[in-house]
Amino acid sequence: MNRTVFFVSESTGITAETLGHSLLSQFDTIDFEQVYMPYINTDLRAKALTQRMQEAADRDGVRPIVFATMLNNEIRAILESGNCYYVELFEGFVEPLSVELGVPPSRKSGRSHAITKPSYYTKRIEAINFAMANDDGIRPDNFHRADVVLIGVSRSGKTPTCLYLAMHYGLRSANYPVTEEDFERGDVPQLVWDCRHKLFALTIDPQRLQLIREERRPGSGYASLERCQEDIRMATQIYKRLQIPVLNTTSQSIEEISSHIIKALRGSGER
Amino acid sequence: MNRTVFFVSESTGITAETLGHSLLSQFDTIDFEQVYMPYINTDLRAKALTQRMQEAADRDGVRPIVFATMLNNEIRAILESGNCYYVELFEGFVEPLSVELGVPPSRKSGRSHAITKPSYYTKRIEAINFAMANDDGIRPDNFHRADVVLIGVSRSGKTPTCLYLAMHYGLRSANYPVTEEDFERGDVPQLVWDCRHKLFALTIDPQRLQLIREERRPGSGYASLERCQEDIRMATQIYKRLQIPVLNTTSQSIEEISSHIIKALRGSGER
Repeated sequence: MNRTVFFVSESTGITAETLGHSLLSQFDTIDFEQVYMPYINTDLRAKALTQRMQEAADRDGVRPIVFATMLNNEIRAILESGNCYYVELFEGFVEPLSVELGVPPSRKSGRSHAITKPSYYTKRIEAINFAMANDDGIRPDNFHRADVVLIGVSRSGKTPTCLYLAMHYGLRSANYPVTEEDFERGDVPQLVWDCRHKLFALTIDPQRLQLIREERRPGSGYASLERCQEDIRMATQIYKRLQIPVLNTTSQSIEEISSHIIKALRGSGER
Repeated sequence: MNRTVFFVSESTGITAETLGHSLLSQFDTIDFEQVYMPYINTDLRAKALTQRMQEAADRDGVRPIVFATMLNNEIRAILESGNCYYVELFEGFVEPLSVELGVPPSRKSGRSHAITKPSYYTKRIEAINFAMANDDGIRPDNFHRADVVLIGVSRSGKTPTCLYLAMHYGLRSANYPVTEEDFERGDVPQLVWDCRHKLFALTIDPQRLQLIREERRPGSGYASLERCQEDIRMATQIYKRLQIPVLNTTSQSIEEISSHIIKALRGSGER
């Protein structure tokens, strides 16, 4: 069964897409054709979209789902008039919240993902630059300036996780690849020990690691199962000595790993 | 006026945070103290959180707001019993959607940001690796393998935008820094011309650019207003020759720029 889903917004559409995706993940037996429609901010664009709804309905034999966050009543009315199951994700919460807060909503659209707090936005961009400049253990002497440092064997997921932590949470993230040299010493450099309070290890099942490394360097010793098993075994010993949290990236997404790190870093959950 | 807000979830909490943030952005006269509480997945954790709600209420003199996406009725009941204004962001949509789709929800928590589609997840991770390896014009010979290529002067926002496009949309993103050498020739290399159909220019107001460059190399000629103005002027001429879309990053976030790029790339909006 195939069903078309439109994520619609007057601005970036990120909110509609995030909540819409979450809702769809509750119905994993259906194959959804997902169409992302940001900046539907004129009557003309809304009318064009109702046309596409009809095409989807004709193609699928069932009306499409529309997940929308619309602040403009006119544009919303146009969308609702289309042949679709319209779900407004935002509006229903605004009025009750306004009553609770005792102030009216601004009704400005596109505030969700705009630069509303320049200082926080700048912090995020700086964190991304920091993560780029401190990837792969390039500068362990910078670890003292980091908010979080990840340690793991090659291809265990350090780089994407660091970038996510920087981009999404504005954390200055660095990482240290634990290598042959550390295994031979059975230890990591002092600069790594020094940041133990903000150090997290990433581990991964050797079989999965082999697949990822094989993609990168097919048929190499580096990608062999034996080497992957040995790397993980040696690394795990080091993590035990360090007594740091170990997170497994085998079946967890960078979002999940990052949320665990945030929770651990901020025992209090404050931000 | 200060008001505490908790973003609560049984898993990553990304959905609660995204929609919660969007809603708060409608009330920008209030100073919200935002607390992120992922993995509230036991009665014990929920009870501990009600304790923190009470502390916030005592401190602020007004009950906190709780934005939650809870699938577990028992845990939700504990949270709702706390001294808070509880807003359930997810549940209200699930049942009506289930009726429309004609299938029951899976009721599994933590599906939203888990690896539910390994192929798409792998695509995102590969896109991040591609963006890292093709930043700052390192490999123009790789542009033919990119889904999107950004061009802009130094510090116009190319790198964070590329990383966002890769991370969020799984697009293989590369970028080309337009420099002195191009200005002297009044043109860009053939490899850049060749990817014109997926090329986007980022521009920025010279005053803003000056501030950003000043952060990086204080007092340098590179950061001078004259140099920034000249760089932007020369670059703009090149973009005109290329006849490509130009996006202004001065007051737009990477999320907004990325949404515009996605919309333009996928005239159809398909993904």
